[in-house]
Amino acid sequence: MKNISILGATGSVGTQALTVIEGNPELYRVSALTGNGNAALLIEQALKFKPELVVITDESKYQAVKMALAGTNIKVLAGEEALCEAAVLDGVDIVLTAIVGSVGLKPTIAAIKAGKDIALANKETLVVAGDLITQLARENGVRIIPVDSEHSAIFQCLVGESTNSIEKIYLTASGGPFRGKDRSFLKGVRKAEALKHPNWVMGAKITIDSASLMNKGLEVIEAKWLFDLDVDQIDVIVHPQSIVHSLVQFNDGSMKAQMGLPDMNLPIHYALAYPDRISSDFKRFNFIDYPELNFYKADSETFRNLDLAYVALRKGGNMPCIINAANEVVVEAFLQDKIGFLQMSDVIEACMEGIGFIEQPSLSNYLETDLHTRIFASQLVTK
Amino acid sequence: MKNISILGATGSVGTQALTVIEGNPELYRVSALTGNGNAALLIEQALKFKPELVVITDESKYQAVKMALAGTNIKVLAGEEALCEAAVLDGVDIVLTAIVGSVGLKPTIAAIKAGKDIALANKETLVVAGDLITQLARENGVRIIPVDSEHSAIFQCLVGESTNSIEKIYLTASGGPFRGKDRSFLKGVRKAEALKHPNWVMGAKITIDSASLMNKGLEVIEAKWLFDLDVDQIDVIVHPQSIVHSLVQFNDGSMKAQMGLPDMNLPIHYALAYPDRISSDFKRFNFIDYPELNFYKADSETFRNLDLAYVALRKGGNMPCIINAANEVVVEAFLQDKIGFLQMSDVIEACMEGIGFIEQPSLSNYLETDLHTRIFASQLVTK
Repeated sequence: MKNISILGATGSVGTQALTVIEGNPELYRVSALTGNGNAALLIEQALKFKPELVVITDESKYQAVKMALAGTNIKVLAGEEALCEAAVLDGVDIVLTAIVGSVGLKPTIAAIKAGKDIALANKETLVVAGDLITQLARENGVRIIPVDSEHSAIFQCLVGESTNSIEKIYLTASGGPFRGKDRSFLKGVRKAEALKHPNWVMGAKITIDSASLMNKGLEVIEAKWLFDLDVDQIDVIVHPQSIVHSLVQFNDGSMKAQMGLPDMNLPIHYALAYPDRISSDFKRFNFIDYPELNFYKADSETFRNLDLAYVALRKGGNMPCIINAANEVVVEAFLQDKIGFLQMSDVIEACMEGIGFIEQPSLSNYLETDLHTRIFASQLVTK
Repeated sequence: MKNISILGATGSVGTQALTVIEGNPELYRVSALTGNGNAALLIEQALKFKPELVVITDESKYQAVKMALAGTNIKVLAGEEALCEAAVLDGVDIVLTAIVGSVGLKPTIAAIKAGKDIALANKETLVVAGDLITQLARENGVRIIPVDSEHSAIFQCLVGESTNSIEKIYLTASGGPFRGKDRSFLKGVRKAEALKHPNWVMGAKITIDSASLMNKGLEVIEAKWLFDLDVDQIDVIVHPQSIVHSLVQFNDGSMKAQMGLPDMNLPIHYALAYPDRISSDFKRFNFIDYPELNFYKADSETFRNLDLAYVALRKGGNMPCIINAANEVVVEAFLQDKIGFLQMSDVIEACMEGIGFIEQPSLSNYLETDLHTRIFASQLVTK
């Protein structure tokens, strides 16, 4: 029986994780749930799964949650700082970090310091401060098991293999809703089109990131830290069907791919069950439905974010933190119709140039960079 | 340093294995080499690799080999029985069984009893007597590492996984030179066309088996024993590009595939290096060369051998032994223009009906079945 704390329980990954947990009551118990703004869903989840602790980060909703859970034994806390309480709760074996954005950084650090294994769905944590996080995990003997389907694929391909036999990895990218389009088309696209992902059902932020290829850029950075790779060992290949979730090429020339239907339940289930595989009744992949799988070079001239992420990773230091913070601002601005699709890259690039570079940042340097970049980017998007 | 005995050194797998060994002199030493009829090549190999023992099974060529190796320290033996000497030689760590046909059975058994690990390229051994061989390997703590690209793929996908988490496996089949053809076309094909495999460079017998899908049928049986599966856990999928070498579907719904260019050097290298991966300079797979990978249902109505193999495997006992022996005879007859392409299945089916079924055969039952089937089939092909 594993006790699980879910940070970001009301989001896409969080709700799917609860479905997996509900289907395996003999394996998993929910110890803590946190949500941001969706108090109604958080209350519903809390009443159903009966955790010890519930955290609502939007403090204006504290009273509503507290009232709704009155008469239960569930402790209710509010505010961002309280996320750390959910991350370090006694008896918790694994913390699923399903929060979106760099706000996941602090609770993840708290969880690692408390010796909790991490099922990592909050890629921003590794993008922002991959060096600090991975070092901390090593020091505390903590496992970081990726939930992102691409990184779960790489992780699964590496089971039983020596990591120093990796020659390179390929992260697959669906190409999103605008695959094959040019910049003149992209200039005019609106959020409704960008939110229509062809294969994956995900939250709004990651769906926009998929359309702009920034998601893949962030994943390249995430992969660097998760698997201890050099930049040149990480490649991206566009695969419209999203069946091959990613691949490893070994130093003998052999390659392994992990495959399956595009369904986040699978990597969530794998991360929670690891190192075991637990049987599931998820719909199976059938070749008859996919007689053709395609693979293309990514178009990083049109989708500049991917190149920007590589530039940031090569530069190192606080540069990935800068693009992540800038990206969070521009995606929000795009979703609010404040800026166009192509402007997102422009603002990110301006932040990369405008924010001071720090070669070996401390945690507080990262937090400052994150804050400064947000202020800088916000000014640019409201011009 | 691993000491290697190669049974069938002058064949396709044998010569490629020697290339791999030559490229890694710090890892591998050749202890014994055996050949069948190609004395000149065997002599050349012996002078180059300086094994302790050389065996030429064609006794008429013994003197020629003996003379050519006079003045060296290499011991020369002749005849089929001497294969066992090469299999059990002191100091040998791994025996590569690259002989074609059921003649590989006895030396493989001898090697296992002597505690030698087996790099298995002689699939017929497992097809004929898979139950006996796998039990013997377990009793002697011997590893059987497959060299067939498909089984090497499955083996690689299972590294670090629990075998009881396998839901099913897919063996990929190129479909051979006659993929998409119908029976009226196949009626008239001759050996020159059948020997033109689209992807793989292999010996004549296995190339014909690939064209007739019997190779895939034999591989299904081989997989049953190698991975301890039920018949219904083994599926075949046609994949014309031969890039995905085979796949495992696990009980959680996740799938793993091993991929690479169609190059036997890779699975040979893997089998010899196992459990390590040793870097190689084999040509790498590049997605740009393969923008499309296809997968189709196998046409077992046209290529009846595949169904016959499934029937044999379901029936069990000496039935797989029967189809293997019958197939060796019909392939030889087809290569000698004695029978047509479609007649091969007819003769095999007649043998399955004509030879006495034994539910739990002993080794001598298998050897008798093999002999009786060959006699029976030979009569049918010379009618």
